[in-house]
Amino acid sequence: MSAPTAFRTRIAVRFGDVDHAGIVFYPKFFIYFHEAFERFFDDARLTYERLLGERRIGFPTVHIDCDYKAPLKYGDSLDLEVSVPRVGQKSAVFRYQGYRHRDGKHAVSAEITTACVDMDRFAAIDIPADLRALFERFAT
Amino acid sequence: MSAPTAFRTRIAVRFGDVDHAGIVFYPKFFIYFHEAFERFFDDARLTYERLLGERRIGFPTVHIDCDYKAPLKYGDSLDLEVSVPRVGQKSAVFRYQGYRHRDGKHAVSAEITTACVDMDRFAAIDIPADLRALFERFAT
Amino acid sequence: MSAPTAFRTRIAVRFGDVDHAGIVFYPKFFIYFHEAFERFFDDARLTYERLLGERRIGFPTVHIDCDYKAPLKYGDSLDLEVSVPRVGQKSAVFRYQGYRHRDGKHAVSAEITTACVDMDRFAAIDIPADLRALFERFAT
Amino acid sequence: MSAPTAFRTRIAVRFGDVDHAGIVFYPKFFIYFHEAFERFFDDARLTYERLLGERRIGFPTVHIDCDYKAPLKYGDSLDLEVSVPRVGQKSAVFRYQGYRHRDGKHAVSAEITTACVDMDRFAAIDIPADLRALFERFAT
Repeated sequence: MSAPTAFRTRIAVRFGDVDHAGIVFYPKFFIYFHEAFERFFDDARLTYERLLGERRIGFPTVHIDCDYKAPLKYGDSLDLEVSVPRVGQKSAVFRYQGYRHRDGKHAVSAEITTACVDMDRFAAIDIPADLRALFERFAT
Repeated sequence: MSAPTAFRTRIAVRFGDVDHAGIVFYPKFFIYFHEAFERFFDDARLTYERLLGERRIGFPTVHIDCDYKAPLKYGDSLDLEVSVPRVGQKSAVFRYQGYRHRDGKHAVSAEITTACVDMDRFAAIDIPADLRALFERFAT
Repeated sequence: MSAPTAFRTRIAVRFGDVDHAGIVFYPKFFIYFHEAFERFFDDARLTYERLLGERRIGFPTVHIDCDYKAPLKYGDSLDLEVSVPRVGQKSAVFRYQGYRHRDGKHAVSAEITTACVDMDRFAAIDIPADLRALFERFAT
Repeated sequence: MSAPTAFRTRIAVRFGDVDHAGIVFYPKFFIYFHEAFERFFDDARLTYERLLGERRIGFPTVHIDCDYKAPLKYGDSLDLEVSVPRVGQKSAVFRYQGYRHRDGKHAVSAEITTACVDMDRFAAIDIPADLRALFERFAT
């Protein structure tokens, strides 16, 4: 088995993502994180859409800790590293490290705690074994 | 019975609504129109949320015809007039006339055709009598 | 010279794009169209960002004509064809034909008229020759 | 002088704010917080738009700590309390406590650290005295 590593993906800043101040509006980073989160599942051939639709399992956000370090502008893209540093019984922490592509500058750093939830009852459940195994591959 | 008139409401441009060019990003106007559409139902004490949730009736958009006449910036607000110029058997056309509050300039004009839909089957149905009566009060 | 053809690109529906009714919220399609529009310029090695930033030329929307034909859900993606059926002195019409990827169903069809604008003065200008030549290659 | 208190405002969940899971998409809460933040300035007759435009002072977000406690649906509204628990030389922490209007349930709690920034240089500056005085009135 290979050592844990981060999942890497790149997100381009879109025209409508910048705000009145000419930089990416800070809530948009959570849209980027969610897109990276979805690609993380896609990459594992466990699409988030099927997880929600077929298995009725979702990972709503319960806590965010996020640092903004450098602004992004239109024309920029963000190199994101997704890892899962902590996996509990019913929750998992996703870490997002974002680097501004043009200069490699560390732009954003976030830890997003998600609960593993039965979407029909909206109640926390134990993380299923296959998902736990996936997360642990990215436990860096 | 009073003569048909438009429903009037005001929407403030929000910080995140402007784009890289410093003006309201054009898709945001449809967010404004939908907000006005919801207030139109609220004002009639027929909230759109209950219409969808309890009566399972919705009005998804099937056609848009929209003219942009003057740009809005952050700090601006939009005076909107909502009317329902055409009510068919299973569809209704909502007209939105938007004026820039600071100078009264005509900023945007749209006709949005909606279908009356049974949300469970996502199939067009006849517009119920109470909604038809409401729409006709705004048939200016 | 080859016959005019459409520019093709695919957009995945994102988690936050669906609305209370479980389908892609109709204003989001304009976000998709804008993303396709930006990729159209990228593909021609004339990025929209540099067009705006360096040449101070933009193409704000002045008119929309749009038909919604079939809904998209989370998990869907949209195959978009971008063409430029009409190029005037100071304006260009972009046509977007969108097909639901899973079944090829025609989902959305739009013509978006844009003005060629000097972003410093926000005034219409003649479309520069290189952009006119680009648009005419997609004049299908 | 009266004792410090929170600024209170109410935000209605909009149709497009809910996600595929039928609850408000978590990034949208930051849109709500920003709207409350803008109303906080409006209420003090110091609009954020003039602060940015005329005085060239902004408060970009540098850190977020946020807990999600209960979900909101379409039809809900959020009662928000805004306070400023910590004011530093060049930064201020805004606290947002959000309660679900229909049942008073504590839905969301966030501390958002902002830097006081000269928007022309995008560099941190000392918080001007009038803003410091305003923030201290809400230092609960």
